[in-house]
Amino acid sequence: MLNQSPPLDLTFQALADPTRRAMIERLSLSPASVSDLARPLAMSLPAVMQHLAVLEGSGLVVSQKVGRVRTCRIDPLALNRAHEWMNARRAEWERRLDRLGAYLEELSSNGGSDESGR
Amino acid sequence: MLNQSPPLDLTFQALADPTRRAMIERLSLSPASVSDLARPLAMSLPAVMQHLAVLEGSGLVVSQKVGRVRTCRIDPLALNRAHEWMNARRAEWERRLDRLGAYLEELSSNGGSDESGR
Repeated sequence: MLNQSPPLDLTFQALADPTRRAMIERLSLSPASVSDLARPLAMSLPAVMQHLAVLEGSGLVVSQKVGRVRTCRIDPLALNRAHEWMNARRAEWERRLDRLGAYLEELSSNGGSDESGR
Repeated sequence: MLNQSPPLDLTFQALADPTRRAMIERLSLSPASVSDLARPLAMSLPAVMQHLAVLEGSGLVVSQKVGRVRTCRIDPLALNRAHEWMNARRAEWERRLDRLGAYLEELSSNGGSDESGR
């Protein structure tokens, strides 16, 4: 189960909510129990559990219950995939901006020689 | 308008759809007209316009109509903000994993000296 890569749709959908991002921010620092996660959030435990279910469904978070305590932690795979998708887009427009810069420079130096040729 | 940073909610929401990600992938390569964007997509032009409206609402894409042609391009600001949010989370767990590694190493060297002390 854990090795299946959940689609980017679910990852981005899970991240599109400030409560779930706050939970990811908390879990990036260390694993935490559901009560730890709920403490700073102004909502009921069932509401927190619902957000946790979305995070687990997206593969961003895994949890394990030992005795009465459910401990949650980040599973880096899904966040890494989303991060890589963004890195690829960013690399593309950076290459494009470089090409555009080179083109504008060429235009401006050609323009300069046209001017001087007149 | 363009300088307001749209919230991460809208950015991630916009990215949670494969058609909109395909449009962002296309626009990362170069600006494009709405017809260019629609060509590889198996959907009607109104459906493409709806996805474009979501992308524009999220700040990921800006478009400008000159004559009959609406040209779309990426606005890097929103994607950069989402990218930075992910970078920050990633930096946090990398620091945590480093600390955990150091702790385990310390445990194992203490354990080793305990063993030798017996």
